[in-house]
Amino acid sequence: MSSDKLIIFDTTLRDGEQSPGASMTRDEKLRIARQLERLKVDVIEAGFAASSNGDFECVQAIARAIKDSTICSLSRANDRDIARAAEALKGAQRGRIHTFIATSPLHMEKKLRMTPEQVLEQSRLSVRFARNLMDDIEFSAEDGYRSDIDFLARVCEVVIDEGATTINIPDTVGYAIPELYGEFIRTLREKVPNSDKAIWSVHCHNDLGMAVANSLAGVKIGGARQIECTINGLGERAGNCSLEEAVMAIKTRRDYFGLQVAIDTQHIVAASRMVSQITGFTVQPNKAVVGANAFAHASGIHQDGVLKARDTYEIMRAEDVGWSANKIVLGKLSGRNAFKQRLQELGVELDSEMEVNAAFARFKELADRKSEIFDEDILALVNDESISSVKEQYGFVSLAQHSETGERPHATIVFTVDGKEVRSQAEGNGPVDASLRAIEAHVNSGAEMVLYSVNAISGSTESQGEVAVRLQSAGRVVNGVGADPDIIVASAKAYLSALNRLQSHTDRVPAQGV
Amino acid sequence: MSSDKLIIFDTTLRDGEQSPGASMTRDEKLRIARQLERLKVDVIEAGFAASSNGDFECVQAIARAIKDSTICSLSRANDRDIARAAEALKGAQRGRIHTFIATSPLHMEKKLRMTPEQVLEQSRLSVRFARNLMDDIEFSAEDGYRSDIDFLARVCEVVIDEGATTINIPDTVGYAIPELYGEFIRTLREKVPNSDKAIWSVHCHNDLGMAVANSLAGVKIGGARQIECTINGLGERAGNCSLEEAVMAIKTRRDYFGLQVAIDTQHIVAASRMVSQITGFTVQPNKAVVGANAFAHASGIHQDGVLKARDTYEIMRAEDVGWSANKIVLGKLSGRNAFKQRLQELGVELDSEMEVNAAFARFKELADRKSEIFDEDILALVNDESISSVKEQYGFVSLAQHSETGERPHATIVFTVDGKEVRSQAEGNGPVDASLRAIEAHVNSGAEMVLYSVNAISGSTESQGEVAVRLQSAGRVVNGVGADPDIIVASAKAYLSALNRLQSHTDRVPAQGV
Repeated sequence: MSSDKLIIFDTTLRDGEQSPGASMTRDEKLRIARQLERLKVDVIEAGFAASSNGDFECVQAIARAIKDSTICSLSRANDRDIARAAEALKGAQRGRIHTFIATSPLHMEKKLRMTPEQVLEQSRLSVRFARNLMDDIEFSAEDGYRSDIDFLARVCEVVIDEGATTINIPDTVGYAIPELYGEFIRTLREKVPNSDKAIWSVHCHNDLGMAVANSLAGVKIGGARQIECTINGLGERAGNCSLEEAVMAIKTRRDYFGLQVAIDTQHIVAASRMVSQITGFTVQPNKAVVGANAFAHASGIHQDGVLKARDTYEIMRAEDVGWSANKIVLGKLSGRNAFKQRLQELGVELDSEMEVNAAFARFKELADRKSEIFDEDILALVNDESISSVKEQYGFVSLAQHSETGERPHATIVFTVDGKEVRSQAEGNGPVDASLRAIEAHVNSGAEMVLYSVNAISGSTESQGEVAVRLQSAGRVVNGVGADPDIIVASAKAYLSALNRLQSHTDRVPAQGV
Repeated sequence: MSSDKLIIFDTTLRDGEQSPGASMTRDEKLRIARQLERLKVDVIEAGFAASSNGDFECVQAIARAIKDSTICSLSRANDRDIARAAEALKGAQRGRIHTFIATSPLHMEKKLRMTPEQVLEQSRLSVRFARNLMDDIEFSAEDGYRSDIDFLARVCEVVIDEGATTINIPDTVGYAIPELYGEFIRTLREKVPNSDKAIWSVHCHNDLGMAVANSLAGVKIGGARQIECTINGLGERAGNCSLEEAVMAIKTRRDYFGLQVAIDTQHIVAASRMVSQITGFTVQPNKAVVGANAFAHASGIHQDGVLKARDTYEIMRAEDVGWSANKIVLGKLSGRNAFKQRLQELGVELDSEMEVNAAFARFKELADRKSEIFDEDILALVNDESISSVKEQYGFVSLAQHSETGERPHATIVFTVDGKEVRSQAEGNGPVDASLRAIEAHVNSGAEMVLYSVNAISGSTESQGEVAVRLQSAGRVVNGVGADPDIIVASAKAYLSALNRLQSHTDRVPAQGV
């Protein structure tokens, strides 16, 4: 167990997606999975196959597309869930079933309504069943850190006996302190007689802002050799351990950790932007590693003395995490091949040549209006749902709007509903409000908007604006994203995209809290 | 030294403000200082008096206005800086001079070009000089964590002998690991024979995402009894230790820390929003404690089962950090007194009755268009620089804009330049771009826009939009913020506000890296 290889297990697509408003389409998940493979993530948790048909298909599609990373599906500790996970993973080069059950007194009593002995027995039977379907089996003890350590040790011993190859001890509610969590993992491993037969894993939530430090203490003090994490620390509530922070800490402080990670850090910033653009979850400027200000000299800001003092104040190089990759890559003279090649480098794989053509046409249109095309612009182009292969209920056609001080802003929008054009108009408090009211005047979704935000894609307003809206309806929350140099048009596109998602998503098993 | 009182030292107004783009006006700093006083912060670092006349005036104004917190000014370790700090702090109920010098080999050699013996001597003389002016003296060893521990111990011994009452050991570059940092502080204190004559302090940067965990390890393992932190973790690069995370960890895990903090946590969310609105630095949804998603049921999202499972998944109560305070407080029937009272509760103190009248008029205008007025709306109203007492060069008057698919967006803006009205028009890639181009067509600032973002103040587009722009010109970076239900108008206001700041700020001593 004292290997110096640290396994990076990314759960952006499962735990990250459980964050209210962060749900993703199959195509989006595939794009992120490809980027994770490019990052050389060891294990990609692709979803929770039994939770819905949509999730099943996502896991299946990712299992078939990804070759270099192990693909994992979550499943509760019952035969049906486990069988669905195994089925979804059939096409995988390397698959892993990740089954879990809660072991803390509170969760066993309030959530599961089971006795500890029942939980122990169900753990045993589930891992036995899973192991008959697949060799690579991870077992998680939900709310493990708040469990009775002797009971937890019995559960771990039993599931290792049944063939579980990875044992994960989550701090499900983000309650841990590095020193205590590290000691907990160490003591637990000492109490489990067959502990050397499994790899130990940590999974920490960030409610007190210590998910990264807790995970690293679980590794250094506790002897764990797998960290479960997400890009940008995405996840429910305050999120999970940030992949980028954990990895850069391991690399920067190799003197202390003495561990190897496979991650190709140069793809970190691109992965961060992709996840932020797809989910609409912004990254704050003062976020470590991937925030716009994280490296002062890389943020487009050139203060006197920053470059001179760089060595004295910076412990990592911005280039090492991919900041320098933000180059002007294409202009109006770039051809279709150069465009296609850049798409591939960015991890975007469009499904057909027709889609490449559509994206290229939009690229040329943009290049006519904007002299410098950045990677972000290209990603925004293809994120735009109008070129997606999925048949959407609502599509943007055109918009006219006017506002003038002293008058009520007004907008007229033309959009398609199941392929048929509709024209609608409305007034509002501002031109965005008027445009969205014009859509609602026809659609009558009754959805409540709970978030609206805009970011200029490469700093200035000359660039495209990227709008994220979050709608809530009947207990479901979806995000929509739209990009356009005209912020009002981007808003309308984002709103239509969110409406499409409200339509298309079917109900899933409620979010789980590993 | 084994007191159970933990001192919370907030440096939002000094270290936070050093973050490129986060500079604040005197009025804004005063508002934040009042909110910090309401939070019951023990020490407020109000600025760096010797760095510019503007900073001097800010420290002076805060020292005079705040009664319950100690007011502190940073100063380099020289007599001139220290004398300026003391002068600025004259009106304070309780003042503190915070003097610093670098002690790491790298910083002494490359930045200071001084030998260790010279640094030791300068530390001694500076603290001696400061102690003659004031009783409460803090000494910081910049880049302390990367210093030779025996040399650092000699410096600490000398400055305590000279009367320094607080000794701060920063992790200036965010390089520490909790276990190592805690042990470093503990060992250092053991090496300093008079260590019990001072309070030990920690100041951690977040480059590897561990500022909070490091600070807490400095307290628990190292025996420090002061944490230096900022609201939202604002600060250079990846920022500082977050006040809200450190405080909630101490409170939530009192079983482990056994320490008392004075902070009135119910004002945390209001403080977070105020700092975010004033600086234009957004808080990401998955930020611990103050992020929109940090408490699922408080984010306007009501997923099935969240409320039921609340106990099982939440270790803190949203109400305890002030989430429930986000109530509908005023409507169109509310009178001037109710409005004025709410302003006071929000920590806003306008300078004259005329300003209250102007703000109230804007409030009534907004209430006509928007049925529910939230605290955020009120803060946005008064953040709007057009009612500020400062005489600004540029002021917004009116705007008309139009965009239509297939045509080039167009805007006409009327604004004042030193009180005189100017009308200007332009086309652009979108209506925002056109409006800002119309301003630039007249102003010709040549400033580069490096950030543009919009947030709807209370979720929906019916509410006001709050726009932040960041301009860079000749090595200086400023933020401007504007609010209006019309996003284009808000953008124009934000741009004019940023231009005003580009004009008004004088050069300061370059940012320091404690």
